[in-house]
Amino acid sequence: MASGAGRARITAAEFQELAERGVPYVGQLGCVVERFAPGDVLVRLPYSDLLQRPGGTICGPALMALADITLYGLVMSLLGRVELAVTTSMTVHFLTRPARKDVLAAGRILKLGRRLAVGEVVMRTDGDPRPICQVTGTYALPPEPGPK
Amino acid sequence: MASGAGRARITAAEFQELAERGVPYVGQLGCVVERFAPGDVLVRLPYSDLLQRPGGTICGPALMALADITLYGLVMSLLGRVELAVTTSMTVHFLTRPARKDVLAAGRILKLGRRLAVGEVVMRTDGDPRPICQVTGTYALPPEPGPK
Amino acid sequence: MASGAGRARITAAEFQELAERGVPYVGQLGCVVERFAPGDVLVRLPYSDLLQRPGGTICGPALMALADITLYGLVMSLLGRVELAVTTSMTVHFLTRPARKDVLAAGRILKLGRRLAVGEVVMRTDGDPRPICQVTGTYALPPEPGPK
Amino acid sequence: MASGAGRARITAAEFQELAERGVPYVGQLGCVVERFAPGDVLVRLPYSDLLQRPGGTICGPALMALADITLYGLVMSLLGRVELAVTTSMTVHFLTRPARKDVLAAGRILKLGRRLAVGEVVMRTDGDPRPICQVTGTYALPPEPGPK
Repeated sequence: MASGAGRARITAAEFQELAERGVPYVGQLGCVVERFAPGDVLVRLPYSDLLQRPGGTICGPALMALADITLYGLVMSLLGRVELAVTTSMTVHFLTRPARKDVLAAGRILKLGRRLAVGEVVMRTDGDPRPICQVTGTYALPPEPGPK
Repeated sequence: MASGAGRARITAAEFQELAERGVPYVGQLGCVVERFAPGDVLVRLPYSDLLQRPGGTICGPALMALADITLYGLVMSLLGRVELAVTTSMTVHFLTRPARKDVLAAGRILKLGRRLAVGEVVMRTDGDPRPICQVTGTYALPPEPGPK
Repeated sequence: MASGAGRARITAAEFQELAERGVPYVGQLGCVVERFAPGDVLVRLPYSDLLQRPGGTICGPALMALADITLYGLVMSLLGRVELAVTTSMTVHFLTRPARKDVLAAGRILKLGRRLAVGEVVMRTDGDPRPICQVTGTYALPPEPGPK
Repeated sequence: MASGAGRARITAAEFQELAERGVPYVGQLGCVVERFAPGDVLVRLPYSDLLQRPGGTICGPALMALADITLYGLVMSLLGRVELAVTTSMTVHFLTRPARKDVLAAGRILKLGRRLAVGEVVMRTDGDPRPICQVTGTYALPPEPGPK
């Protein structure tokens, strides 16, 4: 596994700031980083009227944005600040219609290679154990900086 | 194939209104429906600062939202106003870093069954033939209303 | 959730027989059903020369066939003998090159609706905790038989 | 785009031999390479009893194996003999129940980067224009050999 050695460490607060300011379309969701340990990240999407879709539920694109930020955090929790890492693919399964409540997204790593990382995100409505959305995503990692 | 008989027809203008007002998080993107024929839909995502991510490119979640609205339009172009149709899965491949320009999303249908529809969306930067993003998505269709 | 009431029950031995004889291209793999509880299925793929690919590893199509039989078992473990259920999609992530050893595939259910089931399969080489392959699959379920 | 310069060229006959002998579990399908131009590959899966599943149709794992060999050919048609290229992910949509006839798989490239290739395969029953299966797959490419 890639060690992340040679890359700058990142704290939960630094990742929170990236989640808020890095990408405006995602930052406006107001996601809150609730857990940020290496390979174990939990992000909360607060319910707001911006997210709703007809039928009194949360729109798919808001959940996909939540998945994206969670996977990005997952990679950074392991490798540090890898600004050049890019998502190469994402598969999303919408399982159950979410309620008008906060959503919690838990990310875990499936593979951390030198060139690719694969992670999984499972989302639940706050207070309900049933998964509402499951996502797998792949990141292409930039070449690791060598020793100087 | 499902005929869509018994379902209300929808015009390009009606779909445009749905794209703008149906879901606030997607509506703020200002997508413009450029073509809306049965099984052949083209949607433009105008470039704006809201979409940018570091590196001078368009963030993934904006492209995923564009895919979602394009697939929804594709289903409606064939079946009429099926408000109860829901996306069940989406697989997104990010192929090339988009420029800071409008993105055009072309949707075509792969399968239209009684219970499931599968569509594909290919995105290009306006004026550039190379695909930047390819998406397949699946919709679960509500039972078709019978004759009265 | 669908209860499966009204559908014939199936035992591990019956599913083992289906795995062996239902589909010749899959049956020749000699998969062994090691656990068959509702929503919790474990299937072993014995290593054999038939599976190898250059580089001394197991070919991807054998792992995809293993995923297919495991997901099928998962659906049957919950719903009974649903011969008309069909796989509608599968997403496979190949994580790590497997060794020339048996592979164990563990299936769990993500969603069991009336019309769709979504399951996940994680594979490991026997004796090694690292996942080598992760799969999500969707099944379209036939209409449930009503009460008589 | 990667040029493939520096890699050994491969002919249709050489790829046909790889399809037959490289991987026994796939080779027994008897696939026939019908077209092998750079970025444009067509592979025929001859119908045989080995492939059947209950209901008089072709089993999913045989179609997934066909997708795998077609994507592999697609990569080789562009880059030459890249034995170290590995499939990293595959998403398969089963669209329509195939008849008991030969299946034709057409592969085209969506992206050819230095580190990743993404391709699409669309399958049809011989003589029927409707797609029966659509696949997207990702390959990780080994570092290109430099000039000597």
